[in-house]
Amino acid sequence: MNDAATHFASSQGGTPADVGKYVDRTAIEAAEILPGLRFQPVIGTNALLNFVSYEPHSEAPLHTHEEEQIVLVLEGELHFHVNGHDRVLRPGDVVVVPPWVPHGAHTLDVPCLQVDFFTPARETLRRQAIAAIPGSSVQCS
Amino acid sequence: MNDAATHFASSQGGTPADVGKYVDRTAIEAAEILPGLRFQPVIGTNALLNFVSYEPHSEAPLHTHEEEQIVLVLEGELHFHVNGHDRVLRPGDVVVVPPWVPHGAHTLDVPCLQVDFFTPARETLRRQAIAAIPGSSVQCS
Repeated sequence: MNDAATHFASSQGGTPADVGKYVDRTAIEAAEILPGLRFQPVIGTNALLNFVSYEPHSEAPLHTHEEEQIVLVLEGELHFHVNGHDRVLRPGDVVVVPPWVPHGAHTLDVPCLQVDFFTPARETLRRQAIAAIPGSSVQCS
Repeated sequence: MNDAATHFASSQGGTPADVGKYVDRTAIEAAEILPGLRFQPVIGTNALLNFVSYEPHSEAPLHTHEEEQIVLVLEGELHFHVNGHDRVLRPGDVVVVPPWVPHGAHTLDVPCLQVDFFTPARETLRRQAIAAIPGSSVQCS
């Protein structure tokens, strides 16, 4: 098979463990975890997506965790720090953060919307996602 | 600890398996896998992010795979199908696609930019990502 045929194969090689779901971000209850920093998580099975909004002059402090994380900036401007390297990120910029790599971020005068993907799902966000999701998603069973 | 203290803990509970990296999406070589459908993958360890751009009237055919997938629409308009349920998605809309759940998408007159997050990394995209990434990322070791 060529790449497209391999990528878009439709053979049913396993059984779905869950149903698909559509989620409306604007309907997810936002939790302000620190001043000016709000989370809107979407829970998967072994993955979790989290929308993070920063008001100007807010901060996600330097931290580490066992989950792998990929960061994507959606709006605004974010001052990011990973493993001693600083960079100002703008929409379309990505950061790959392997397990246990120290990272943090803050805004200055410009707000920011970023999305984080975690695998496995971060436990602190799983709890919020389970509480927040009923009104924000449509299950496709 | 409260939620913020737990979430932003900085204890070093493990050893980083890899270095962090910054990736510039515009520098990732885009591969046209089907007419009007282009991929720009970013590889992690057990995760992979893929930017997917659709020209008007292009299609990602219905397919299934063992990897879990979370879809986020970034720009434009996407006609999505998951497990028999159709919806028109716009920026900020999310779809959670568990392993082996059939899904596909197409555009009509409006183009679309979406981002997919996979865990584990999809093998077809890993190969492309490994080939494409050297010029598009800065490793933070």
